[in-house]
Formats: sequence, C-alpha cells, structure tokens
Amino acid sequence: MKKVNLGIVGATGMVGQTFLKVMEQRNFPIDNLYLFASKKSKGQKIIYKEKEYFVEELNEESFNKPIDVLLFSAGGEISKKYAPIAVEKGITVVDNSSAWRMNENVPLVVPEVNPEDISWHEGIISNPNCSTIQCVVPLKPLHSAFKIKRIIFSTYQAVSGSGVGGILDLEYGIKSYKPKKYPYPIAFNCLPHIDDFLDNGYTKEEMKMINETHKILHDDKIKITSTTVRVPVRYGHCVSANIEFENSFEMDEIFNVLNNAKGITVLDDVNNNLYPMPIDAEGKDEVFVGRIRRDFSVENGINIWIVADNIRKGAATNTVQIAELLINNIK
Amino acid sequence: MKKVNLGIVGATGMVGQTFLKVMEQRNFPIDNLYLFASKKSKGQKIIYKEKEYFVEELNEESFNKPIDVLLFSAGGEISKKYAPIAVEKGITVVDNSSAWRMNENVPLVVPEVNPEDISWHEGIISNPNCSTIQCVVPLKPLHSAFKIKRIIFSTYQAVSGSGVGGILDLEYGIKSYKPKKYPYPIAFNCLPHIDDFLDNGYTKEEMKMINETHKILHDDKIKITSTTVRVPVRYGHCVSANIEFENSFEMDEIFNVLNNAKGITVLDDVNNNLYPMPIDAEGKDEVFVGRIRRDFSVENGINIWIVADNIRKGAATNTVQIAELLINNIK
Repeated sequence: MKKVNLGIVGATGMVGQTFLKVMEQRNFPIDNLYLFASKKSKGQKIIYKEKEYFVEELNEESFNKPIDVLLFSAGGEISKKYAPIAVEKGITVVDNSSAWRMNENVPLVVPEVNPEDISWHEGIISNPNCSTIQCVVPLKPLHSAFKIKRIIFSTYQAVSGSGVGGILDLEYGIKSYKPKKYPYPIAFNCLPHIDDFLDNGYTKEEMKMINETHKILHDDKIKITSTTVRVPVRYGHCVSANIEFENSFEMDEIFNVLNNAKGITVLDDVNNNLYPMPIDAEGKDEVFVGRIRRDFSVENGINIWIVADNIRKGAATNTVQIAELLINNIK
Repeated sequence: MKKVNLGIVGATGMVGQTFLKVMEQRNFPIDNLYLFASKKSKGQKIIYKEKEYFVEELNEESFNKPIDVLLFSAGGEISKKYAPIAVEKGITVVDNSSAWRMNENVPLVVPEVNPEDISWHEGIISNPNCSTIQCVVPLKPLHSAFKIKRIIFSTYQAVSGSGVGGILDLEYGIKSYKPKKYPYPIAFNCLPHIDDFLDNGYTKEEMKMINETHKILHDDKIKITSTTVRVPVRYGHCVSANIEFENSFEMDEIFNVLNNAKGITVLDDVNNNLYPMPIDAEGKDEVFVGRIRRDFSVENGINIWIVADNIRKGAATNTVQIAELLINNIK
C-alpha cells in the first residue's frame, strides 16, 4: 500500500484525536503527518507512533505543503472555507462536517455500503452524520435483500456527539451546574433537540438522517421519518429503527443477511440478556445490531436496535476508512 | 364528597409514598387510613396530614378492618394473593401491578380516557402500565378525531420505574459500582430491556404497551408496535410516538385536539427551545406533549414526543384519580 502525506484539520478536537488513535490501530500508511488546529492549540505537542508532532495554526498558506489527503473535523464553517483551498492545491479532502454532504458533486461514503461512490469525487468526499452511518450499515444489506419501503428512526444519542462541551455538560451536570453546551441540563434528562430546528418542525439532525440515508442508499423512494434525542450517555449512539419492506421474509433470513454483512456484529440472544448497549460499543469500530424481531403491526416489518461508537464508526473510523479507500485507488 | 376508609398495600414503597403525597395535595377525602407493608416495615411511623400512622404487616387478617377502598402497589404476586381476599370482604381494590390488567372482568382505567369503565368493576380496577398511561392520554382524543391506524412507540424510561433499586443503580453507578437491580450498569448507558423477554422477542413491557392500549381505547384494530428502553434518568418517562391516522388532517387540528384534551399540557415552541423533558415533568401530574409534526413518510401521520412523571401520572396520581372516581360513584 502506498504511503501518503496526510493532514488533519481539527487535530486537537475529540474526533481529530480519534483519527490518530484509529490510524495507529489500523496501521494506516502515513509518510508525513501534518496537524492543523485553531490558534489556541498552536504549538501543542502530539505523539503519533512514538514520534513528536507539533500542531500548526490553520491558515490559507497551510496547504502549501506536499499533502495528499486532508481529514477535516473542525466544524462546517472551517470546512466550507478551507476545503476548496485544499482542493485547488490538488489535495483530496475527507470532510467530517455537514458542510458538503448534500452537494451533488460530493460523494457521501460509508465504505461497507457505497465504496464505489468515491470514484466520482472532485476533491471532496463527505463523511455522513454519525447516526446515519450506523443505520445505513445494516439498512443496505436489508434493502438489497427485501427492498425497504419505510423507516421510522428514534435515536438515543451520546453527548460526545457535541464534542468535549457535551461531555462536560454531562459530567459536571451530575452535580449542580449550569449547562454550557446545551440549552438545558443533560444529566438525568433527555433532550429531544439535536442541532437547529427547521421550519417544518424537524431538527437538522432529523433531516440529515432522512436525506443522507437517501443519498447513501441511492434511493429517494424509501420513506423515512426520524426523531433524534440526546441522552445522558458519554459514548455510543443507539437507534430504535422500525423498518417496513416491500417483500416478505422469514426472520431467519433477516438474521442471515445481518450476520453476513460487512461491519456488523449481531448481538441478539435475549434469553441471555445479550443486546447492544453504548457502554459495550465504546471504543469499537463495528455496528452492533440486536433486538431483531418481527413487527406484527404491518405486513412485512421488523424492529431493530442499532448501537455504535459515534466518535469511532460514527466519525473517525469511517473517515479513516474512506482515506484507506482513496489510497487503494491511488496505488 | 363522601369520606372513605382507605388502605394502602405497599405503603412504604416509592409509589406507596407518592399515593400519600398525591392524596394530600388533592385533598383526598379520607376518614380512616390504614397502611400495610411487608414485615420489615412493620411499626414504621408515617405522617399524613400532620397525623401519625403506623405501618402494619400485611397478612390474611389485615382486611378485617372497615376499609372501603384499597390501593395496591406491592408487586404482582402480592396483588394476586391479597386482592381477592379484600374483594371477598367487600373492599374495592385499585391495583397498580400488572397482575389483573388484562383480566376481562377487570377494568383498566385512565380517568381522562375511559372513566366509564369503572362502572363494570367486580371489585378490582387496574391501573395501567406507566408508559401506556402517558400515551393513551393524548392518543384517545386523537383517535376520536382522526381514527388511529398504526402506532410505533420507542420509549426512554426512567429508573424510578424499577423502584428504589433503579435509583440506587443509577446514583451509585455514576461511580464504579456493580449494579443490583439491572443486569448491566444504567449510568451513562441505555438498556433495551424492560421486564422479561417473551418468546416472540418482545419484552413484557413492550407487549403491555400494545395490549393495554388496545384495552383502554376499546379498539383491538389499532396496529401497534413498541421498543422500550431504560435510560439514565431518575424520574419521567419519554415516548417517541409515530402515529398514522385513517383520516386526513391539518396540523392545526392536531394542535387543537391536544390543546383541548383533559390532562395534557402542550409544550411545543421549538423556536424558543420549548419541548417536554423529564426534568420538567418530575413532580407534575399532567402529560406533556411536544415536537408535534407531520410525518412526511406516510399519507396521514405525525410524530410526537410524550413525557410524564412515571411515578405520578404513570402510577400514583392515576391510581388516586381512579379512587376519586369510585368515591364519586359511591356518594
């Protein structure tokens, strides 16, 4: 595998740090590594594979270096401004923000689901929303097998999805504390509010799950609705997904499809209390699926419970996997 | 209003204690009060309206006293054994356990929804499951107005639903601690497991939401499915409910129906971050409904977010309301 010169924008953030952890664990083939962040992190020392690196302040000259691939995780505004600058210099960007995801010239990729989409990138590839990623991994093989007609998502999302600020609101919130990241306390509470509200009454997070699922599965005809909720969990998003199919199925066929799909671990033995939970998914790269059962309220339906580490598979791991696909294409 | 001689079985438990709090707040017309619990609580002093009462040990002679109405909240086994003994002595039982709920000779009552059902009781009236109560309060007026075809529930249930043991698992679980009430830690986790698993892959809690909703709404034709999940919240259950109607509607009609329904407070002004949350519902008797929006994935559908204090409206308050209905009938 070819070694690449890799840059990270947002290297000191929660996802940025996890990029490095995931790359080290997967033995990602780096030649040179460049770390960028905002002014306040300038000069910060970061160890990667026993070697010292120093964080540089991101500016318009940052990409004059011989960089092949840049991973962005510094928020939508930074991506909007700096990704085009990088692309102009011939760098391929893998962006973890929502800035470019629905742009029709930007592939939105989950490597187990639509790896072929990286072929038509024009410099930017987007990493989907965390909740969407963990859902499309099981939805894709089920859609191929039985054709999905309608999906109803209800999510249980960890505070780490809001970065360090979310973790602090939860940790300090256990004692008396005025929340800083969220409008209300998250400790011992549920907030049916993730990202901004839109005029149709849905949040942006809810619409991301609808629109991004359509784009990744290449099928706008699937009917989807979503309710997204923040819960007092540190790491690991859960999704209660109700899925209706066009075609009939036996439950053992559903299990077979999921057991044989890439990136999925089926945890479903309720007699032994085996089901996916956020505390078990933390630090893992797979998507865990359980509570798989027929929905008796509709002709061809199931209910499933999908759990994944939102910072790993929901963000950093998926981004690194996209970079790996890119490198395999380069070689 | 006639004053009654009232007994409480399970007087020292979380719901038992809340019976007393709710009765005091509602100025429930008690003449004599009798408190029963297990042997270990015998002799415990309880103050009600500035008067001292002493807990008696429950046994087969307990009901030889002049009791009119007995509220039970001591678990299904105690209800199964002792409710018939009470009924034989002419006492009317309002039972908070699941023991009698689906018995065809036992009305299952939510006073805002089906108060007329108390008329056919034969000595026992059941109080429904906590999550079911808070859902049927908004479902009933919506069903009357637009005819419900199908419901998909995903719940976010507080640990107080498991009694003091649930609270302790959460509070101690914030530090390192081996859970006692639940099979896994609940702090910073979600457990897609409430009550026992059945052969069809559903939990008893999930089937309660289906079967009890049918019974309370007097309509077995409504298609219902459910996923019930325990979350690290002390008090207040949340439900993400997706509802499909037979009839078409305008969204302002949905709001009108909910705004004019008994027992409901609509909290829905997302531009001002107004939506129901467990920390706000704690200690309240209403059902809070918000995030009310059209489900664009189906012809006549909505998504709503329902929150109520599971110990108050989900248990104690509803039971006391049933007792109030009984007294009004007695007078």
